[in-house]
Amino acid sequence: MKGDFTILTQVSVENITQGVDFSAEIIQNTLTTNNLWMMLSTALVFIMHLGFAGVEAGFGQAKNTVNILFKNTVTPIIGIVSYSLIGFFLMYPGFEVPGWLDFDFSGWNMFWFKPEEADVSAGYADAGYTYWTDFLFQAMFAATAATIVSGAIAERVKLGAYLLFTVVFVAIVYPLIGSWKWGGGALDAMGFYDFAGSTLVHSVGGWGALAGVILVGPRIGKYVNGKAIDKPGASVPLAVIGVFLLWLGWFGFNGGSVLSADPALVSLVLVTTCLGACAGGLGGFLAAYFVFKRLDLGMVLNGVLAGLVGITAGADVINPISALIIGFIAGILVVLSATFLDRMRLDDVVGAVSVHLTCGIWGTLAVGLFSNNPEHTFLTQLLGVVICGATAFFSAFIIFYLLKVTMGIRVSEEHERSGLDSHEHGIRGYTIVYDE
Amino acid sequence: MKGDFTILTQVSVENITQGVDFSAEIIQNTLTTNNLWMMLSTALVFIMHLGFAGVEAGFGQAKNTVNILFKNTVTPIIGIVSYSLIGFFLMYPGFEVPGWLDFDFSGWNMFWFKPEEADVSAGYADAGYTYWTDFLFQAMFAATAATIVSGAIAERVKLGAYLLFTVVFVAIVYPLIGSWKWGGGALDAMGFYDFAGSTLVHSVGGWGALAGVILVGPRIGKYVNGKAIDKPGASVPLAVIGVFLLWLGWFGFNGGSVLSADPALVSLVLVTTCLGACAGGLGGFLAAYFVFKRLDLGMVLNGVLAGLVGITAGADVINPISALIIGFIAGILVVLSATFLDRMRLDDVVGAVSVHLTCGIWGTLAVGLFSNNPEHTFLTQLLGVVICGATAFFSAFIIFYLLKVTMGIRVSEEHERSGLDSHEHGIRGYTIVYDE
Amino acid sequence: MKGDFTILTQVSVENITQGVDFSAEIIQNTLTTNNLWMMLSTALVFIMHLGFAGVEAGFGQAKNTVNILFKNTVTPIIGIVSYSLIGFFLMYPGFEVPGWLDFDFSGWNMFWFKPEEADVSAGYADAGYTYWTDFLFQAMFAATAATIVSGAIAERVKLGAYLLFTVVFVAIVYPLIGSWKWGGGALDAMGFYDFAGSTLVHSVGGWGALAGVILVGPRIGKYVNGKAIDKPGASVPLAVIGVFLLWLGWFGFNGGSVLSADPALVSLVLVTTCLGACAGGLGGFLAAYFVFKRLDLGMVLNGVLAGLVGITAGADVINPISALIIGFIAGILVVLSATFLDRMRLDDVVGAVSVHLTCGIWGTLAVGLFSNNPEHTFLTQLLGVVICGATAFFSAFIIFYLLKVTMGIRVSEEHERSGLDSHEHGIRGYTIVYDE
Repeated sequence: MKGDFTILTQVSVENITQGVDFSAEIIQNTLTTNNLWMMLSTALVFIMHLGFAGVEAGFGQAKNTVNILFKNTVTPIIGIVSYSLIGFFLMYPGFEVPGWLDFDFSGWNMFWFKPEEADVSAGYADAGYTYWTDFLFQAMFAATAATIVSGAIAERVKLGAYLLFTVVFVAIVYPLIGSWKWGGGALDAMGFYDFAGSTLVHSVGGWGALAGVILVGPRIGKYVNGKAIDKPGASVPLAVIGVFLLWLGWFGFNGGSVLSADPALVSLVLVTTCLGACAGGLGGFLAAYFVFKRLDLGMVLNGVLAGLVGITAGADVINPISALIIGFIAGILVVLSATFLDRMRLDDVVGAVSVHLTCGIWGTLAVGLFSNNPEHTFLTQLLGVVICGATAFFSAFIIFYLLKVTMGIRVSEEHERSGLDSHEHGIRGYTIVYDE
Repeated sequence: MKGDFTILTQVSVENITQGVDFSAEIIQNTLTTNNLWMMLSTALVFIMHLGFAGVEAGFGQAKNTVNILFKNTVTPIIGIVSYSLIGFFLMYPGFEVPGWLDFDFSGWNMFWFKPEEADVSAGYADAGYTYWTDFLFQAMFAATAATIVSGAIAERVKLGAYLLFTVVFVAIVYPLIGSWKWGGGALDAMGFYDFAGSTLVHSVGGWGALAGVILVGPRIGKYVNGKAIDKPGASVPLAVIGVFLLWLGWFGFNGGSVLSADPALVSLVLVTTCLGACAGGLGGFLAAYFVFKRLDLGMVLNGVLAGLVGITAGADVINPISALIIGFIAGILVVLSATFLDRMRLDDVVGAVSVHLTCGIWGTLAVGLFSNNPEHTFLTQLLGVVICGATAFFSAFIIFYLLKVTMGIRVSEEHERSGLDSHEHGIRGYTIVYDE
Repeated sequence: MKGDFTILTQVSVENITQGVDFSAEIIQNTLTTNNLWMMLSTALVFIMHLGFAGVEAGFGQAKNTVNILFKNTVTPIIGIVSYSLIGFFLMYPGFEVPGWLDFDFSGWNMFWFKPEEADVSAGYADAGYTYWTDFLFQAMFAATAATIVSGAIAERVKLGAYLLFTVVFVAIVYPLIGSWKWGGGALDAMGFYDFAGSTLVHSVGGWGALAGVILVGPRIGKYVNGKAIDKPGASVPLAVIGVFLLWLGWFGFNGGSVLSADPALVSLVLVTTCLGACAGGLGGFLAAYFVFKRLDLGMVLNGVLAGLVGITAGADVINPISALIIGFIAGILVVLSATFLDRMRLDDVVGAVSVHLTCGIWGTLAVGLFSNNPEHTFLTQLLGVVICGATAFFSAFIIFYLLKVTMGIRVSEEHERSGLDSHEHGIRGYTIVYDE
């Protein structure tokens, strides 16, 4: 009996040694899986840039297709580079000091020259994903805020002016506002909640779009005798491709915002996100049917995007039934907002302001109404909307204004009439000719 | 000696405490990884809806492009909502009682109002993925069954009738049949095998398409003097995009049907799926070359889809060599089936009946011929095909028939001739004009 | 006291039993996650085939759209099948014997007939992914090498000749060269480094493209009086879709080449890959602006691809700052290379030689200049470039030459002038007509 006991205990000591080792391996496994999800979410958000390109080139006129695609291709390029050089370091100044203006470029040297140090640096050991994954995920987000602007002011904005705007917006404005909440700053301390960016990404982009639309003015011939004239988009299939890719990408946009692969929370977020998109599409469908008396595919598509923007602020803290309601209202709002903007002679080529600004505000406020967390209040949400909105709008307005009075932000009337493609790019978007 | 012994034992007790904790963390890691794969499979199946949209709008005529895209955009929207409200609860009535009619709506309240309870509910602790992942994966599947129908009857079906059909099909018919096998019902108890849905998804959709094609009738001018007249599709590139996206999505459709991230099984399924697709493309290529004497891209594309449908029922229980054979035969069958349907004056715009019904039946029967599991027999497979087929066809026939005698299922001749886009939607699919 | 002690020890023995089991479960979790990433990388590389199809059909003329898409659809089909029948076994002859010619078909029977044995076979227990995942990932790579060729010689190559070339190239040439490095052969032993295939995939494909371009000759009317005449592509949006999908797919192409889901390394690779793409786009943008004095979207797009090709050889061993430099230079090189090729009257429809060959060489050499690993030297890199280049070029030249003198590799002048679609396929790529 005693002999047996001793043997068993000796066995146990050996196994225990293995047990101790497991601890590190289990943490490594958890990190690997969380990081995997975050990398895939990054890839999904990346493909949203193709989604935006599709929506904008699809809804824009054929004579400007190349120009629109040029903008949408270069936006993630300069967006990611700008964010890597400045924005990232401005947005995440550290985790200790919540405030309004905290810049910390101490990581800059490590980022560019010492990649092997980056992953073991402070703050990332427990984060559930690596420094590089964090950067790339955030960079993809940053570039979307600029892309939102591009759609609204397409077909008459000067390309150079838009690109300069994008650099400043992605390098400074977006990360500054983002730092207030996601960087652990003052809005975060205040209790403001914005899960994946109805405000921090979408309405920030939407305010930029509104400033641009005001300053650049409507397209020639858009408003005649107080009536808005339809400018048929070049390719409806392209717009549909765009919306489906955005919907797909949103699974990463919202799902990745959990910042881990937590099974229960991520999968709930995917369900609320998807129900929000569906309900938004239905809302746009029905609202357009009642308002315009037609089966308006454009409004179904924008309704889907509206539902997605609306659900984004609270996707992790609401019930599925609330997702349906929030999305459905967003789908209705996008139709009303588009009609209202046209009445104000604010010419937004793809409805970006209605989708991202109107429904970004709605989604952020909806957290105050539908959240299961009693600490989320309507008033704090409203305050966050106002602070971020005022900052984004006036920043964008000032940038566009400075560009307007210096280099100009609008192409010549001749170029606009004959199309930007032939003048600025020398080629056409489509050359479908069969006779030689 | 005794002192040492005591010390060692004390060490062991401390470590053991860690050992006990590991157990939960390892299970959590396994769950997280499995759930991650299931969520990604869900996203891949989602993108199949864009694939269907591409194929249908690409093969359909330009004058109906918007109408087709409207159908294909709204199908996942109302499909997912219908499935969330009714279908899901009908399809998975519980795991204990195999039968033909077992409804269980006990989870409805939890689904919509108590998301925090859903993941700890009975049955999901051991499932390897969460309640929400399960729902969304199944919802994406459900909506595909309806989409299959839309392609076959495009260009002349009334949109409202199609949408009503979709609601009933996704809310009731598809989940009822699905419950017999995947819900643990009578077909499952009988030994019928359908891994990822050659029958439960594809032939169910295909039977619905056949019923629709019969009742709605061929397009005007499709059959003249006993000959089938080609109606050129608007955009071959769009169809190619669609097929590649479907192929991509099928990696999630079949790979996710393993219901875990099991490395050996999922990767084998991806290989058999991919070989089936390739062989199907080759089969369609060669069969069309011999039958039509031309390099028929449409038949290569439909051959790929045929191979994918064919491989779906047994992708996890066959050898790679069998995958090649099953896919190749499916590729040949799709050409013969399309020719046969045209001879029967059954006008299927995209070949949906040939791809999903003919090859869905073939794939299900092939399990009885090629499976490595001796319990899978040809006769049981045939019985399952007949039971599911009869139910799906007659259900779909009755729904379409009731819609036909009440609201009507076909647009007016005038609308059909001039195209559905200008009449029902007020816009055109493509507006590629360069002169003002 | 003694009683307590005994009880504790008994508890420990039970838990220890669990501890022993954990070891296997932790390894299983690690394997599952690694394998998951590799499977997803496979799916991402797969979608690159749609990317290539988009670029080639977008940049090619509308009269040849169907022909181009036929090639691009059939290429992965016959590529994957050829690789599964021969190439895979030629490329990975085993891990022990580095050499120039080591064939090992001992796994052939297991592959096709005994899938259940494959995953427990030697070499895969520790690999971090399964046999099937390995095959499919490699097969997707193999097919891309052939696709690169297709774009360069489009619009005048005989389809049958191209398909035969593809079979031989994917079944023998690509895997032979690949075996020298990735199969553990002589180049690997020599210290040559090519992380994800700037040389082994891209320049091998690029050399094949160059051989094809030389032997098939320029398109009729491409060079008139020493000047290159632009042949407008059918659809710029399609080309943009293609480039974005290639960029997306490259996250799997490079990220998957880590051969595990290692969080630090994979995420660093994604960052260098993405920065390389961005910098390449900027380089192409600026170089084209200075050389051609226009905002050349085609060169931005090819610049992105150039940056991706350039970063591929060293994505895991360089600093982010080096990624910017390598990509930017690649973007400039692609513009210079395209201009040079036109001066040499080498007609490459999509710029495949400039993107994949020129920048593939650049990227491989850049490892010798920028790698953080001192064992990577410029001279060894150069040697590898020359050995692989000579083999790839002469193999491709011989294959194309044999095809030229036997069946012919160029379509008739009549077919080329009126377009390949109407002659070889009987349909048109686009049929956008609204009047009946």
